[in-house]
Amino acid sequence: MEVETCLRKMGLVLPEPPEPVGHYQAFVRAGNLVFISGQLPLINGALTHRGQVGSDLTLDEGYDAARTCALNVLAQIKKALGGFQRLRAIVRLDGYINAATGFSDLSRVLDGASDLFAQTLRERAGHSRTVAAHSGLPLNAAVEVVAIVEVE
Amino acid sequence: MEVETCLRKMGLVLPEPPEPVGHYQAFVRAGNLVFISGQLPLINGALTHRGQVGSDLTLDEGYDAARTCALNVLAQIKKALGGFQRLRAIVRLDGYINAATGFSDLSRVLDGASDLFAQTLRERAGHSRTVAAHSGLPLNAAVEVVAIVEVE
Amino acid sequence: MEVETCLRKMGLVLPEPPEPVGHYQAFVRAGNLVFISGQLPLINGALTHRGQVGSDLTLDEGYDAARTCALNVLAQIKKALGGFQRLRAIVRLDGYINAATGFSDLSRVLDGASDLFAQTLRERAGHSRTVAAHSGLPLNAAVEVVAIVEVE
Repeated sequence: MEVETCLRKMGLVLPEPPEPVGHYQAFVRAGNLVFISGQLPLINGALTHRGQVGSDLTLDEGYDAARTCALNVLAQIKKALGGFQRLRAIVRLDGYINAATGFSDLSRVLDGASDLFAQTLRERAGHSRTVAAHSGLPLNAAVEVVAIVEVE
Repeated sequence: MEVETCLRKMGLVLPEPPEPVGHYQAFVRAGNLVFISGQLPLINGALTHRGQVGSDLTLDEGYDAARTCALNVLAQIKKALGGFQRLRAIVRLDGYINAATGFSDLSRVLDGASDLFAQTLRERAGHSRTVAAHSGLPLNAAVEVVAIVEVE
Repeated sequence: MEVETCLRKMGLVLPEPPEPVGHYQAFVRAGNLVFISGQLPLINGALTHRGQVGSDLTLDEGYDAARTCALNVLAQIKKALGGFQRLRAIVRLDGYINAATGFSDLSRVLDGASDLFAQTLRERAGHSRTVAAHSGLPLNAAVEVVAIVEVE
């Protein structure tokens, strides 16, 4: 099943890929790898999840924030590759969590991104992953998700 | 000398490579690069070093935590490549240190990982490196170590 | 125009590339990618910007710190490639900002690095980017900049 068909069945729509919030590119290709810039939970230019997970936001809200970041990763992949046909795999995913002191359930937050990839990309979803808490993120976003993908 | 022989002479044993603590893969290969997921100081499923370096843990304990993370990186490399023969080099190492406010001796902590690679991989150990303090890590681990390796 | 000519017109000089502050290499090549270790705002072995942006340092000082880190990235590229002729592009830039709690104008700080690349590398500057706040950095540096570059 197509990625966007999967999303529709989940009640989700691929957003417009956000423009960079600084002097850089949204993605850069080198050989068969595409490096995608850090994606925030932005929909139509507005942050959907702001503040720290574990104080301002619950774990479930953090999970949703990570899922929205992952939607933007998918939107950037579509723009970079002209669709999903030539995507071979998500190779690496880094999750930066804006988290309250003492909140260490970081992996469950980032599963919001990983689960979306599993549900839409299936066997092409399998990625290595890192996650850590940060004392702040751009625009005070709750989550930032970074990806490296491989192209056929 | 073989990697595991080196480890034995140091009184160390290669652990079982830890399973991912979320919905992702322990490693993913793309071309000649293998991206290894963030490794925690886990031995047999239990954290050996928990809390913040500089308050809960001393610098020396942080160094040991980084070394245990590096042992798990070696264990993942062995599993990914079926041994160490085809390993060309550790290309990049990122150290995430769960550190108390004001603790900035982060490079010495991560040397626990770099030194282990030097002692066991010799000329194949040489890696680029980044290190930074984080306000938290998964499971409240003291250190997380991330690696990209090159395959022959 | 040559990179170093651009720098001179801006009143800047390429510094000596800093030595690693731990047991690792300043850069490692794998295929057509060169992974450059985290660069601090070091000039002649001394930190130019220390402390947290948003409390100890202003946004403008943070921007200058990021620019000095980027100068060191250029110095490492020159050393790694024997000049800038074979540089194809900066592929990925990660900015680690030592930032006060609540300071979220992180993208503007890292623009100090991105702008320098745009001014000196022109069409080869275009990079993907990530940025996040950290509760500490090595030597209490204000900024650390990490780069992956592609070689012809």
